[in-house]
Amino acid sequence: MTDRPRALLFDVFGTVVDWRGSIAAEIDLMTAARGWGVSGHDFALAWRNLYQPAMARIRDGGRGFVKLDVLHRENLEQVLKDFGIDDMTGAEKAELNRVWHRLDPWPDAVGGLNRLKSRFILATCSNGNISLMVNMARRAGLPWDVILGAEVARAYKPQREAYLNSAAALDLEPGECCMVAAHNDDLAAAQSFGLKTAYVERRSEFDAGGTEPRPATGDWDWIAADFRDLADQLDC
Amino acid sequence: MTDRPRALLFDVFGTVVDWRGSIAAEIDLMTAARGWGVSGHDFALAWRNLYQPAMARIRDGGRGFVKLDVLHRENLEQVLKDFGIDDMTGAEKAELNRVWHRLDPWPDAVGGLNRLKSRFILATCSNGNISLMVNMARRAGLPWDVILGAEVARAYKPQREAYLNSAAALDLEPGECCMVAAHNDDLAAAQSFGLKTAYVERRSEFDAGGTEPRPATGDWDWIAADFRDLADQLDC
Repeated sequence: MTDRPRALLFDVFGTVVDWRGSIAAEIDLMTAARGWGVSGHDFALAWRNLYQPAMARIRDGGRGFVKLDVLHRENLEQVLKDFGIDDMTGAEKAELNRVWHRLDPWPDAVGGLNRLKSRFILATCSNGNISLMVNMARRAGLPWDVILGAEVARAYKPQREAYLNSAAALDLEPGECCMVAAHNDDLAAAQSFGLKTAYVERRSEFDAGGTEPRPATGDWDWIAADFRDLADQLDC
Repeated sequence: MTDRPRALLFDVFGTVVDWRGSIAAEIDLMTAARGWGVSGHDFALAWRNLYQPAMARIRDGGRGFVKLDVLHRENLEQVLKDFGIDDMTGAEKAELNRVWHRLDPWPDAVGGLNRLKSRFILATCSNGNISLMVNMARRAGLPWDVILGAEVARAYKPQREAYLNSAAALDLEPGECCMVAAHNDDLAAAQSFGLKTAYVERRSEFDAGGTEPRPATGDWDWIAADFRDLADQLDC
């Protein structure tokens, strides 16, 4: 059996909170009010699909580090254009961009995190920026001990610095940290840099109303149905 | 009346926790066990007195940024030498150095912070490093929303970056943040960079068993006897 870690490092978008459902619900309300004729789920997915390409330019050195809020705001312009939406003021766009600060947690997240906190340091290791993580945590009641990740490391996952600077900030060896994520690629990177790994199945992360989990594809240290199951497995 | 801030940025050593009493107690126990003949309070004060000079070299560019744990460890060598103590192993010194992670909060701190958290973002803005702040908070029950300060800003107070990078990390203007400290010089720097200021009287911060508070010397926005009083004044 794998030794327990000292700290759990959490991916957040999709692992802790439901970006797809939260954004879709907000867009559906705006569609109803403004007659956009747009599907909230399509809009959410289109916005999210611009996320990796925007970070890629920073990862490959083509652009200096900027916060995810800035990338989300630029991507929002593109999505609005693609959907033919042109009735929003700058202030309204800024407010909509902050929907990423208002994402709802999966139903088991708050209870599971509070159990896990009894034994482990709980850190975010997300590509989201500090203010986003703080505002989300206060609204949703996520009991983080510390906000780490992209803005603190000045690097976006899966860059090595995003993982290794997070462990170093806690004075821990990589192997004393466990990356917790619903995405196999995030865990593959973390494992390659020496971290332990825990895969959490999030059925609705990959398609709206999904009923089957996407299977774990790697040799992860723990595989859990949700955070309550992870807490059970880690004796919390 | 001054507008209320959105976030409270806390000095920690002396303002939230009692470094002097906590270190003195640990040294007194070691003295009793090892026959050092050293006063815990004298030892604590000598260690703390090397704190500003060690940071000064980094502030003035004579040395690249290193964590406060590293400076504390270097300073510990000097203090042990000055007190003629030569019976500690490297592992024992490392353990003693982590006394800064084990400092006890002032009696009103946890209750006051929990009240203040209901309305304000609570951030550390300390010269202590991230792991120190995390370990201290978990042990003492300090309910921070986010650990900011020297290690995140890569600058030591009273450098402007320590204050302004903390506000920027929260997406707030300096005037939307209030620095909370028991030290007039910390508040003077914060005020000069546009932050609001709250002075907290900590009688025992300036001499062991002190019965009189050190007076507020600036035109601070709030002056409070302790965190409960500050919560009262801020309607929490």
